[in-house]
Amino acid sequence: MSKDAITKDFEAAVGADNVMTSETDRHAYSYDAAVLDSVMPALVVRPTTSEALGKATKLCNDNGLPLTVRGAGTNLSGGTIPHPGGVVVLTNGLNRILEINEEDMYAVVEPGVVTAKFAAEVAKRGLFYPPDPGSQTVSTLGGNVAENAGGLRGLKYGVTKDYVMGMDFWDVNGELVKSGSRTVKCVTGYNLAGLMVASEGTLGVFDKIILKLIPPAQSAKSMMAIFPSMKAASETVAAIIANKIVPATLEMMDNFTIRTVENFRGAGLPVDAAALLLIEVDGHPAQVADEAAKVEDLCRKNGATELKVAKDAAERDAVWQARRDALPALAKLKPTCVLEDATVPRSKIPAMIEALDEISKKFDLTIGTFGHAGDGNLHPTILTDKRDKKEWERVEHAIDEIFDRALALGGTLSGEHGIGMAKSKYLEQETSRATLEYSRRMKSVLDPKGILNPGKIIGPKSEG
Amino acid sequence: MSKDAITKDFEAAVGADNVMTSETDRHAYSYDAAVLDSVMPALVVRPTTSEALGKATKLCNDNGLPLTVRGAGTNLSGGTIPHPGGVVVLTNGLNRILEINEEDMYAVVEPGVVTAKFAAEVAKRGLFYPPDPGSQTVSTLGGNVAENAGGLRGLKYGVTKDYVMGMDFWDVNGELVKSGSRTVKCVTGYNLAGLMVASEGTLGVFDKIILKLIPPAQSAKSMMAIFPSMKAASETVAAIIANKIVPATLEMMDNFTIRTVENFRGAGLPVDAAALLLIEVDGHPAQVADEAAKVEDLCRKNGATELKVAKDAAERDAVWQARRDALPALAKLKPTCVLEDATVPRSKIPAMIEALDEISKKFDLTIGTFGHAGDGNLHPTILTDKRDKKEWERVEHAIDEIFDRALALGGTLSGEHGIGMAKSKYLEQETSRATLEYSRRMKSVLDPKGILNPGKIIGPKSEG
Repeated sequence: MSKDAITKDFEAAVGADNVMTSETDRHAYSYDAAVLDSVMPALVVRPTTSEALGKATKLCNDNGLPLTVRGAGTNLSGGTIPHPGGVVVLTNGLNRILEINEEDMYAVVEPGVVTAKFAAEVAKRGLFYPPDPGSQTVSTLGGNVAENAGGLRGLKYGVTKDYVMGMDFWDVNGELVKSGSRTVKCVTGYNLAGLMVASEGTLGVFDKIILKLIPPAQSAKSMMAIFPSMKAASETVAAIIANKIVPATLEMMDNFTIRTVENFRGAGLPVDAAALLLIEVDGHPAQVADEAAKVEDLCRKNGATELKVAKDAAERDAVWQARRDALPALAKLKPTCVLEDATVPRSKIPAMIEALDEISKKFDLTIGTFGHAGDGNLHPTILTDKRDKKEWERVEHAIDEIFDRALALGGTLSGEHGIGMAKSKYLEQETSRATLEYSRRMKSVLDPKGILNPGKIIGPKSEG
Repeated sequence: MSKDAITKDFEAAVGADNVMTSETDRHAYSYDAAVLDSVMPALVVRPTTSEALGKATKLCNDNGLPLTVRGAGTNLSGGTIPHPGGVVVLTNGLNRILEINEEDMYAVVEPGVVTAKFAAEVAKRGLFYPPDPGSQTVSTLGGNVAENAGGLRGLKYGVTKDYVMGMDFWDVNGELVKSGSRTVKCVTGYNLAGLMVASEGTLGVFDKIILKLIPPAQSAKSMMAIFPSMKAASETVAAIIANKIVPATLEMMDNFTIRTVENFRGAGLPVDAAALLLIEVDGHPAQVADEAAKVEDLCRKNGATELKVAKDAAERDAVWQARRDALPALAKLKPTCVLEDATVPRSKIPAMIEALDEISKKFDLTIGTFGHAGDGNLHPTILTDKRDKKEWERVEHAIDEIFDRALALGGTLSGEHGIGMAKSKYLEQETSRATLEYSRRMKSVLDPKGILNPGKIIGPKSEG
């Protein structure tokens, strides 16, 4: 079929206003938040109904057109970078919260609903949706599920995967597949909803997602602890967990990040501190009081020089805003900002901190380190300029070594950013050849033409 | 290859002592706990090492022999009934707890570890493994994962799925596939460990499972509330949830079950009560006190005529033993005991209780009802005699209607017992034709000869 004829078919499927072909539009959807080259799609379509989404999927498959679903494009591993000549399917026209069921504590949403907006709607009904990825103010729930997004609350509340009760998705033929339920327990058929989580748009196109909600904690207490070294801070993290306290959040920042964040907003962070822990405990008020006292004690025993407890909601919000500023603040310093998310078992955080320090010296690179220390998920952030070829080569070696060290400590390549295009070459190192082959066989039969977000997770098709 | 030659190959793979061919041995593994006809396997093998398990898998595939993995055979949907002429692979020789990591709160186990034994070992280390299916004293963790077993604590603590962090499994070619990690967060590759959950041995053979552990609750309080009707009891369940109290367990029993359990053990249950709720709240002592008071208040407001709080561990254990007696006690009454697990959203429990009452009258059947009311997962138990063909016909119609009503209430066919052979014919009714086709395509490429537990979940191969 000619390109014009195909465009007409898409116009018929999703509405003429919802098909974009101009260079400007296509350029806008040619990249995401990963440090990777942009790729121009042939077409951008914006379905506004479930049926249109199914039709667009079928049209792509019928015409052998690579299809990349895109929420907010905040992906950090290239998962939303389109394939050359492919179609970008936007989900921002599918942004309805279809149901919030307070009695049974679940919600049904379309994939394009913005995470923070959803969490706020849920909070209005007296319920709680915990997953809070860094990009939550713009990221979409569909994108969160496709990447199994984490966030600051993983330690106590788990990640997106733990909140997906069920899903309807379009298979590559444009037929609707249903998995999971509105019930707390469901073992009806294969756990396809579970398989969709973290599948990065390569096995189906999400239509509706059923998300679990929980009652919110009755109270919370946020603290900031200042340490004379990253070692002391990281050992405190291990000590808190070893004492069977599970804070809602347990975040770490090194001095470089502290100074950068302070420059960015001037929130009053202690710029001389070698390391900070930001800690929130939540639950029943008596439990919060007990746990906060224990945490304070453990911080002091492990060398904290100062401890500040947020007195009210405003102070509490300031603490968490500072943490959320870390990435945008670091990203402003240099033209290229590589945000990694190698993750280790929690007790290995001190060893990983040491490894990052060694790697930064060995390759003469600026690495700011912050992240979700409580669940072993650090974000070493390399500040560089990709145009400086010599330095970029050192960056690439440093990334390899970060992965090597994380794996040697029993960790994983990616805690929450996904494999996408950026890490598919490392996948076999962590898993096995058979794992890749199993994955590729599965993909080959569920998407025989290889049109669903090609090149992501398992690498280019030719390798299969 | 001749049968003798194949037997020799299995003997070489798993050891001569671990291959059973006698009729007695084969008969012992020809059935499980489901009300279905037994099927004689050709061979029973018992690998005692990971390598032997992989070799046995490959041998089955190479020779086109249907392979059914069997833990304790407590399956209630026929998932461990072998295929005619097939091989039963026992996991009771693979029963080592390989690691319990207290610092990072996970364990690594072989599939044949008995659930309750594992939970006890974990408890000795000051940690908690919540999933507690009814058969936990004999069931295996591999079986629990294959079925996504639930239990009494699903409401607050989730089910087996929520504790699987990762898994190594043998693919049908005898190659080792690895998915997941020892880290709290992991998005490396497809969520194959999640796909294995509830896959009933049809997509791979579990080698090692990484399970999440959590800190135990500091305290708990168990209560028994007596109600003048099932309606009052079920409305209390809905009221507790609506008040955002999430008990660790919230179980219900009807009068028929109460009387049967009391006859069985004489635990001192109130035999005149129309309905009982057994409730346990746990957590920080102050939270437990608050929640127990609220639960008590809600019970009284909804018509509870009596409320007993367990004074000590012995009284508490007696309460839960009575609940765990329900199935064995009912099963003794008649030759055939059909235990269903249709599940509805929690707020629909009163409607489902009414539906079960109507169905029991309509088909003139004895249905005892008990179960995990707090998560909408009831166990209507039909007592009958399969040899009475006329009554059995009514039983089959009643089962159909139980499913119809559960689905009409937004529920699911199976909360925790699996689809197996017993419910595969209903699968399309809850999902869609495309869901079955998607599942069958996946199965066809991951197990091209169809040797992995054929006939389970998606039905016989010929339908594919």
